[in-house]
Amino acid sequence: MLQSEFSDIGLRLVREGLVSGNFGNLSVHVENGMYITSGGSFLDEAGDPVFVPIGGPVPDRASSEYRVHLEVYGASSHMACVHAHPPFSVAASFVFDRIEPLDSEGSILCPLVPVVEGPPGTKKLAHAVAEGISSSPVVIARGHGTFAFGKTLREALLLTSAVEHACKILYYLGEFGGFTR
Amino acid sequence: MLQSEFSDIGLRLVREGLVSGNFGNLSVHVENGMYITSGGSFLDEAGDPVFVPIGGPVPDRASSEYRVHLEVYGASSHMACVHAHPPFSVAASFVFDRIEPLDSEGSILCPLVPVVEGPPGTKKLAHAVAEGISSSPVVIARGHGTFAFGKTLREALLLTSAVEHACKILYYLGEFGGFTR
Amino acid sequence: MLQSEFSDIGLRLVREGLVSGNFGNLSVHVENGMYITSGGSFLDEAGDPVFVPIGGPVPDRASSEYRVHLEVYGASSHMACVHAHPPFSVAASFVFDRIEPLDSEGSILCPLVPVVEGPPGTKKLAHAVAEGISSSPVVIARGHGTFAFGKTLREALLLTSAVEHACKILYYLGEFGGFTR
Amino acid sequence: MLQSEFSDIGLRLVREGLVSGNFGNLSVHVENGMYITSGGSFLDEAGDPVFVPIGGPVPDRASSEYRVHLEVYGASSHMACVHAHPPFSVAASFVFDRIEPLDSEGSILCPLVPVVEGPPGTKKLAHAVAEGISSSPVVIARGHGTFAFGKTLREALLLTSAVEHACKILYYLGEFGGFTR
Repeated sequence: MLQSEFSDIGLRLVREGLVSGNFGNLSVHVENGMYITSGGSFLDEAGDPVFVPIGGPVPDRASSEYRVHLEVYGASSHMACVHAHPPFSVAASFVFDRIEPLDSEGSILCPLVPVVEGPPGTKKLAHAVAEGISSSPVVIARGHGTFAFGKTLREALLLTSAVEHACKILYYLGEFGGFTR
Repeated sequence: MLQSEFSDIGLRLVREGLVSGNFGNLSVHVENGMYITSGGSFLDEAGDPVFVPIGGPVPDRASSEYRVHLEVYGASSHMACVHAHPPFSVAASFVFDRIEPLDSEGSILCPLVPVVEGPPGTKKLAHAVAEGISSSPVVIARGHGTFAFGKTLREALLLTSAVEHACKILYYLGEFGGFTR
Repeated sequence: MLQSEFSDIGLRLVREGLVSGNFGNLSVHVENGMYITSGGSFLDEAGDPVFVPIGGPVPDRASSEYRVHLEVYGASSHMACVHAHPPFSVAASFVFDRIEPLDSEGSILCPLVPVVEGPPGTKKLAHAVAEGISSSPVVIARGHGTFAFGKTLREALLLTSAVEHACKILYYLGEFGGFTR
Repeated sequence: MLQSEFSDIGLRLVREGLVSGNFGNLSVHVENGMYITSGGSFLDEAGDPVFVPIGGPVPDRASSEYRVHLEVYGASSHMACVHAHPPFSVAASFVFDRIEPLDSEGSILCPLVPVVEGPPGTKKLAHAVAEGISSSPVVIARGHGTFAFGKTLREALLLTSAVEHACKILYYLGEFGGFTR
């Protein structure tokens, strides 16, 4: 059942264009650890997640982004995570320090999305995401992608979709004009 | 047959990008009430609609947007409704008080699309949509999404698609420039 | 075999976003007449085309755009037509009187795409398209959509795809700036 | 197994919108030659590649872009190539002489993507791509498309996807403003 949840949500992420290539990763928190997608797998073929025990060791096959997932599970009551690379959200993260959706769903589901910093796969990123998640169920790592947390993968998918929708609306309204290198 | 109509139209809405996540809802007006998608369901899995009797009670499973559907059915002869969150239409609703399509299909099918106001799920929105529908088969709730009505779900889908196409063309032509917060 | 060609090409048009809703139509020229999609059918379900004999009568089920198809077949040696509503091409038709692709495929396949005028379904549009097709295998009807002709539906699909690609590139390069109402 | 790899990767390219119509081509380097998609085939039906022996003769069915593939295999240790026409990458190639991704994946996988020149199908293009590939696993032929090389078609697909993602982000941030004819 866990396997089909990974595949179903992975397929929706791919179809909505929230990830491309083999980017992004998913995890579900269980007693004593978590299941996370394997490094380099396509999310629409994500049916064979890797178990990562709390305290380690971390299997080689686990996504290199495992630190973020583990740290947030340790610091919160969230049970599932979707990390994606939605293009409008990534672009928005270069322009804003936090995203304030204008549309009704964004305003309800994620009224203030923090933009955090840190290189992919690092402890620095893990700390920054965990801090951001203390105030919002979804954050954007600048130039990298979204990390959304919830009770289920489905809930995390919906937050990811809502953030991207919100950033798309902001873009169409000309709100990305503030970018300078 | 009703179930497959819900699924077919829901699938088309998802594939065309007119809804993302589990947003949006569909209903069909029948004698004594209506069938509406359940709250939180993905529209491409919308094959199990909930019956809402006229005069109530409203089952918990029914989409929280049921008020809009019921009020319009009470005030018109429409038999089906598609509520979606098409991104160009949502963005357009922040710029315009009514959408006047430039393209030929929009000009024919929905020459003047009212933009109405009201928080999702409220009676205020239901009144505003019902008033808008008295002059056009499709309206946009500002910052929220489209409500399209017709004889069938198919007709309501086509209106939704036509409005989004029209708003896309307006956007590509630079017509969203008038937005200010 | 004709039926599966209609379905296959229709499905590709829908998947590429070259048509939305139930817009667009397809035809194949045969001895004594043509087969054309029925009015209001979804192109990804276009497997049951209608025979229109030369000289008539035109069956009620035939797409209302049959005049364009018949007139071009009468004035050329083309054997198949794809009429679609690709959004960048439609927007481009408001800005330009003819499209000159910058990209390599557009430059090779359709170096100068005429923009023609005429209300959908009219003889005026049929004449205008036929005149345009005398100098280019694909034209855009202003505010309406593309008409592409070739030896097969496949060839006409490829021209449609090439024009939309070319218009997309022009748009991304800021070339639609010349639009005024 | 080779056939299913061609189909799988071709299908992903089509679904992600990295190619449209029947554009683009794929090849895999083997001892004594390469397998390449046939000219004019749809990449999502690319299951019947053509063998091109080193030193020739080149079968008529082989993609007309075979020169680029052969020349790079002769000058490098790459084993697979994906040539696609991703729209943001093509547009970017008119604006930049080399693409420097801002996003994290682009910065890691393809930090400096050369833009090279040469008409499709020519030796000039083959030389230019081969030179570009000496410094980056992926290049963009100006106005034409991407050529990505790797150990497998999958690796070449991921580079293609990463370049397009990077160009999309640049576009959304307003970085294509430098284009003049």
